[in-house]
Amino acid sequence: MPELRKHDFLDEYVLIATERAKRPTDFRKPRPPAAGPETCPFCPGREERTPPAVAAYVRRGEKIELLADGEERVRGWSARVFPNLFPAVGPEHGAHEVIAETPAHDRHPSRLDDGEAVLLLRVFRDRFLHHTARGARYVSLFRNHRPEAGASLSHPHSQLISLPLVPPKMAAEQRALARECALCRVAPEEARGGRFLLRRGAWVAFAPRASRKPFEAWVVPERHLPSLREVEGSDLRDFALLARDLLARIEGVLGDFPYNAMLFQLGEGDYHLSLRVEPELATAAGFEKSTGVYINPLPPEEAARTLRSEARGGAEEGPPAGARRAASK
Amino acid sequence: MPELRKHDFLDEYVLIATERAKRPTDFRKPRPPAAGPETCPFCPGREERTPPAVAAYVRRGEKIELLADGEERVRGWSARVFPNLFPAVGPEHGAHEVIAETPAHDRHPSRLDDGEAVLLLRVFRDRFLHHTARGARYVSLFRNHRPEAGASLSHPHSQLISLPLVPPKMAAEQRALARECALCRVAPEEARGGRFLLRRGAWVAFAPRASRKPFEAWVVPERHLPSLREVEGSDLRDFALLARDLLARIEGVLGDFPYNAMLFQLGEGDYHLSLRVEPELATAAGFEKSTGVYINPLPPEEAARTLRSEARGGAEEGPPAGARRAASK
Repeated sequence: MPELRKHDFLDEYVLIATERAKRPTDFRKPRPPAAGPETCPFCPGREERTPPAVAAYVRRGEKIELLADGEERVRGWSARVFPNLFPAVGPEHGAHEVIAETPAHDRHPSRLDDGEAVLLLRVFRDRFLHHTARGARYVSLFRNHRPEAGASLSHPHSQLISLPLVPPKMAAEQRALARECALCRVAPEEARGGRFLLRRGAWVAFAPRASRKPFEAWVVPERHLPSLREVEGSDLRDFALLARDLLARIEGVLGDFPYNAMLFQLGEGDYHLSLRVEPELATAAGFEKSTGVYINPLPPEEAARTLRSEARGGAEEGPPAGARRAASK
Repeated sequence: MPELRKHDFLDEYVLIATERAKRPTDFRKPRPPAAGPETCPFCPGREERTPPAVAAYVRRGEKIELLADGEERVRGWSARVFPNLFPAVGPEHGAHEVIAETPAHDRHPSRLDDGEAVLLLRVFRDRFLHHTARGARYVSLFRNHRPEAGASLSHPHSQLISLPLVPPKMAAEQRALARECALCRVAPEEARGGRFLLRRGAWVAFAPRASRKPFEAWVVPERHLPSLREVEGSDLRDFALLARDLLARIEGVLGDFPYNAMLFQLGEGDYHLSLRVEPELATAAGFEKSTGVYINPLPPEEAARTLRSEARGGAEEGPPAGARRAASK
């Protein structure tokens, strides 16, 4: 029976439509052909095909040094940040940057080693703080993976867009979380429930109750951390590794799947940071666009069960002990 | 220079990013292969493959009769409404109906003759009134065209989903239009400006100032008509023919293009009806999904100029006289 669910803290709704459900593995899509490393403008050795870097991270023995290359292009980088050649915002409004996450053309985040994953999150944090310090009211950090999710190049990269205003959608989120933080309540609940996916240190990954998309997944700290500014040391490491492991877990079920991964945070005022992964497996069409109400053909409980089962070689039948306890109340 | 524009009456923003602009005709996409009429479940003669119709429109000489077919399926229909086999809402929440717009497998709205176009709008109106009278708080009428825009079958069809609540997005629109109706101000302005496309009777078609998508187009009555309930006689005829002509005009530039067409109206309370056509030519990705701010690579003024030029065999160079006057102020 389809179910109408209200969002945990926003004035939004989702239809959980089990009548439309396929088996979770039916969402698997064949990988489309992608441009190879022979001509990729983000690969090492072709730095001249992009604007000069605003930041290049170079390994010197055990340390990672941060450089900006000006006109001569830095070589031997581990990560590289440069202005988007086709910016969506003009210089008077903000910045639009590309973050080449790794020199390796096919090394997407799910396949990074620990050091690489931590470096990538450090780059996100550096750029967030950089633009916040320069007066950006909002800094959007996001990753589009595969053409179906809006990626025009296949080399592993994320993007940053800074804005001179807080988008109304984010302002509404901030208002909704302000009085009594809903994510401070939801994260520990989800860590014990049937939509639980993974945890590491302060961080918990779960399929949100009002998921708009099949296999939607959030990574949220149980502690009230407003933004990456407050994420350091082991918190940063745990966040980076959990995010990587989450993507690898979903890949285990879907194969290389198209998705958008988005950091939700605010540079000023109170908020509760999250990373949200939206696989692009069901097309949002006229109904979603006109009403803002999404039709999700896969209940998040089923998505979570499938993802947990994957980790145990498909052996799991029911939710974990915590969820069974909750269900038997 | 990219431009940040605020929506006319909502707290929403769009980035008009001319640096990303392609020539309008670059949005043309090749038509993907579609399932043919040999196996189409919506084609005449295969009525048993769908649930019984809740309404079938049958031509009797000059008149169109409305029938419901119960278990034996009505033959010879001109339009046919039946429950969606895979409903997104359960019976306790509302209805999910398919409207087979024509018996002809390839006769999409841009190619309907006058009588067929008027019949289609009459069907929309009948179903809207039917569900409103039965207590639906909201009735969504929309059309997804081509797989890229979410259509899973190619036979010309629209869909209706009724809901037990007014979606927050629509409630926000209603609040925004309530005090002093912005569309009553905007429609006559657009009829004289550089984003003007077409007009017929009370209806004007234009590319909205804060278009989120390339070639987005709205059809709005200059008079304050809240919903299809108030649209009858020549108003209904003019609306139907203008909507058809608008789709044909866009096809003239883009070929058979993927789009969502959505009726925005409310069954109760004050509002200003519109039909909104969103071509699905640019993928909404991580930035749009997380911020609600859309990146539109084609300024609506340029889209409108291209569409007007199409009607004149490509001869037009600038905006019409009204727009030139406005620009020289």
